[in-house]
Order: sequence, then C-alpha cells, then structure tokens
Amino acid sequence: VYEAPAFCGYPIDRASLKRREAESLFDASAAEMIVLREGQPLLTPPGADGLMRPVRLTTGARNQLFGAGALTIFLGIDADDAPVFAVDAGRANPTADGELLEGMGTFEELRAAAMRGVPDGDLALIGTAKSILDWHARHGFCAVCGARTAATEGGWKRVCSSCNAEHFPRFDPVVIMLAIRDGKCLVGRQPRFPPGMYSALAGFIEPGETIEEACARELGEEAGLFTRSVRYVGTQPWPWPSQMMIGLFAEVEDGPVNLDPEELEHAVWLTKEQAAAALSGGASLDDGSRVWAPPRLAIASALLKAWSEE
Amino acid sequence: VYEAPAFCGYPIDRASLKRREAESLFDASAAEMIVLREGQPLLTPPGADGLMRPVRLTTGARNQLFGAGALTIFLGIDADDAPVFAVDAGRANPTADGELLEGMGTFEELRAAAMRGVPDGDLALIGTAKSILDWHARHGFCAVCGARTAATEGGWKRVCSSCNAEHFPRFDPVVIMLAIRDGKCLVGRQPRFPPGMYSALAGFIEPGETIEEACARELGEEAGLFTRSVRYVGTQPWPWPSQMMIGLFAEVEDGPVNLDPEELEHAVWLTKEQAAAALSGGASLDDGSRVWAPPRLAIASALLKAWSEE
Repeated sequence: VYEAPAFCGYPIDRASLKRREAESLFDASAAEMIVLREGQPLLTPPGADGLMRPVRLTTGARNQLFGAGALTIFLGIDADDAPVFAVDAGRANPTADGELLEGMGTFEELRAAAMRGVPDGDLALIGTAKSILDWHARHGFCAVCGARTAATEGGWKRVCSSCNAEHFPRFDPVVIMLAIRDGKCLVGRQPRFPPGMYSALAGFIEPGETIEEACARELGEEAGLFTRSVRYVGTQPWPWPSQMMIGLFAEVEDGPVNLDPEELEHAVWLTKEQAAAALSGGASLDDGSRVWAPPRLAIASALLKAWSEE
Repeated sequence: VYEAPAFCGYPIDRASLKRREAESLFDASAAEMIVLREGQPLLTPPGADGLMRPVRLTTGARNQLFGAGALTIFLGIDADDAPVFAVDAGRANPTADGELLEGMGTFEELRAAAMRGVPDGDLALIGTAKSILDWHARHGFCAVCGARTAATEGGWKRVCSSCNAEHFPRFDPVVIMLAIRDGKCLVGRQPRFPPGMYSALAGFIEPGETIEEACARELGEEAGLFTRSVRYVGTQPWPWPSQMMIGLFAEVEDGPVNLDPEELEHAVWLTKEQAAAALSGGASLDDGSRVWAPPRLAIASALLKAWSEE
C-alpha cells in the first residue's frame, strides 16, 4: 500500500482568498508564526513523544525578535481559526541568535530534524515555507526588466516596481520511477549516495512533456530502457529547494541496462523480498553485496514499499 | 478510453546531451528549422490531407531571413538523424514579413490553426518551442541580481552575465478534474467561455502541494465540494504560455455545489450519455438548455470522453 511520505498532508486551510488581507491578520491575537532561517526551522527540543515541533511566536514576539518588516508568509488558517504565518529570521536580522531565542528552541537542519522526528503536518508547513522563502531569496529582481520586485499578497506574489510584472512562486516537477519487469524493480545509485544506498531513478520534467513522456525519456537516457506503460502512484513536495516529485511505476521492455555514467554508477534489479529487506535493515544480493533503500523521508521509500507489498 | 489530446506525443528524440553542442549542429546539411513569431507558427497552406505543417527552413535560409543571431532553440534529432530547431522570427527581425516569406507560408494563430488541422507531432514541437520562446522573452534579466542574462545550451538555459546564476525554462503544473458522484460528472463555465460551453474545473498547483491536495483544494474553493479520492488520468502540455495540465477524476462527497462567482458562473452535473452528447454536437438538459464540451484540442475533452466511455 502506498503511504504518503514526509511533507505531504498540509494540515491547515491555505485560505488563498485571504492572502490579499494577510497583513491585517498579523494582529489577530491568535496569530502564530513559525520561524525559518536560511531554510532551517526553529524547533523546540524533543517532547515526551520524542518529536520536535516548530516554535510558534506571537506577532509581538516576531516584531521584537526580527522586526515588523521581516518577510512573513501567510500559510493559512488552522482549525481554531488562527492565522498561521512563517517568518524569515535570517533575512530580516542576521544577528538574531541563540541569545535572543534562548529557551525557545534552536535552528535545525531540516533533513536531519525530519529524520529524528517532526510531526508530518508540521513538516508540510515547514517545507512549504522553506520553498517559498527560497523563491523570495532568489527573486529580488524582475526577470522581465531587471528592476527590483517586492513581495505582496502574504508572500505568494512579487510585483515589479517598474514594469508591474507579476511573479508567482516557482517549483519544478520531477518524475521519480521504479522501472519494473519480470517481478523485479530497478534501483540505482549516484556516486554521492552513502555506500550501499540505492534509490528510484528520477529527472526533471521539461516544457512540452507529459508525465509519461518524461518518465520514458529519463529511463532511456539514464538506463537505456524502453518504457511500455506508466502508472501514477503519488506526489511528494520536496523542499530542496522546491520540487514536486511525481512517483511512478514503469513497465519496461526486455533489454540490457546501459547506465549514463554521469548520472548513475551502478544499478540492480530487486525482487519484492529484496525490496522489502532493503527498506528494513538492508538486502543481501547474490554477489554478497548489501543494498539499502532511502529513508521514509523520501518518496522512493514509499514507492519501494508500495511495490513490494503489491 | 483516454486518448492523449493535442500537444502530446513529441515526435523526435530531445537529445538533451547534445544541447551543449547545439550551435555546431546548425551547419548540418540536414538541419531543419521551424519558425515562430510571437507565438505564431509559420505554416504551409493545407496539403491534400487538409493539414497545415510547419515550414522547415535550412540554416542558410534562416540566416538570410532572420539573421544568424536569431534566437534558435534545439528541439532534438529526428528519425533521419536531422537536427531540428525552432527559430524566433519576431525578436530577431520584427520586419520579416509576408514579402520575405512569400510562397512559403503564413504565420497563424496557434489555437485556430490547431483546430483547423495540424499533425499532432508538429503541434508538440510547436507547443514546446512556443513555451520556451515565451520564457526567453520574459527572462532577459536575472531574478537573483537584476543583470542581463544570455541564452545558452541550445536555448534550454539562460546564464547571468554578472552573478552566473543559471536559469531553466519554467512551466506551471495545473490540476484539471472532473468531480464525479452518483454516475454524474461536474462541468462548469467561466464567464469568458463561448455560450453553452462547459469544461472541467481547474487550478494551479502551489508549492508544497501534492496533486491530490491541489485537486481537493480547488474543488473546495471553486465548488464547495469535498473530495473523497483522486485518480490520475493523463497529462497535457498547454502552451499558453507554458502549463502542464494534469487530468484527474475526483470522487466527491454528497453536498451542494457552492460556486465561487469569481471563477465560475454556472455548473451542471452530466450523465455519461449527456457527456458523450456534449462532445458531439451538444447535450440537451432537462431544463431545455444545451451544453457543449471543449474541442478535442483540450484535455477536458479527453477526460469527458474517457469518463463517458467507462
């Protein structure tokens, strides 16, 4: 069974129609602000359940710590009608440091923190905020005319100060797929992976492609395989910095695997038993080597689990 | 049965690894260049089969008509090993006109031409070229620092002249869905639609969303419906200017339809018989009104056909 991986399951109403009035919601007494600095969330120490959670500031605390002008993204309205925001600590006040935040929490590298334990709903909020803040950091100027742009509508738009062009947060769709034939699935490893780790193949979708065409192209380019049919499994937002991972199963034709050495250094076909073992402690292959799957954080893990259980 | 709509089925190898050497392929005697001006393809008059096709220039003809410096996109390598390009007529030489091109063809508005008849493979090439040329037209400056950027790698990248930031063609994923319950599907009409035309509901996916979350959010925002489950059907690249339409069927809960009047002026539930009729001449509803579906050009038409035949 496919289980949605980390960063899925946005826990609140995005309330997109309220973005235009987002600033007026700052003063709501119930307003809550999570904090990021250069992609790192401000998290509490682990609670009794072992999970770290985003520190939630009032608007007053934000103003005191980072200034009322700190870039602040409207994330939506929660079940208690509280408006929820994300504030960029780093850009507003790079000197905000441990002393200011003492007793509240610490800025944590997101991937490591997610591995150690952060509630899924909080990861979805943090991931969305991280992607949008990264987009702001890279879009201070208008691509159309080169003039400065400014954030508006709760951080969901930037407008050019000169030509008035409107710019919206960008993210990039990626296909990530298990090639499947004869009851086995293909996993490969990039040279940068930890030893023994293998994952699903993946690549950016290009303008003019369908999901199925991108999957077939990537399997052809990276592994020399010919795709017969493609099945959609699920999507994961991936906030490094801002990708939409579209998870697929691809039935492929017989034929040798020819790896693109620029992309992959090795690939192996796993049985369902081996895929299940790779997800829990590591699979032993016939040649004596061992294969690990990526952690649950990644959709590749969810794809392997779903396929191994089919 | 779902049949991929227009702009799907890219007919040649994108040969992305050859993009770095794209300029050296200009001089191949077999090189072919299709032509666009402000999004309009240069098309031949209809042939014996009634279809218009892109005029294909040699590199020499491109140089003569539009100059060797005209922005030229590498589209790939065809089955005869000929490199295929798209040249931007408008930006290089806005005075290129009917006289220059006499006897070759005419620049045609793409949507109207596609309705009258252009081969699907040619539409996929033209659509991809249109999207990428539009991106170039809007990205002459670096969003990171405001300096000028220049095209490279066969038009698949722009690089900043000052900070060296790399920029890649952007496109925006959209969910487009039929809400389904009790054997009926929901279609709605925007005020700008021609009289009687109804289509699938749709909206942009946002950073941090899965495909399923975006579908549920849009059906909630636009129609007040609660989504129970989502099924992926197919994708269509849509070159106005550059969207990826992700077609879905969404099972929805019982409950009234509450339209967002900013988005939709009316919506109706169609039976499978009515959906089939709407695709071929128009469906008569109980209240005497008539409903038409969008043309085959649009994925909404393919979704209605696939659902009505299930």
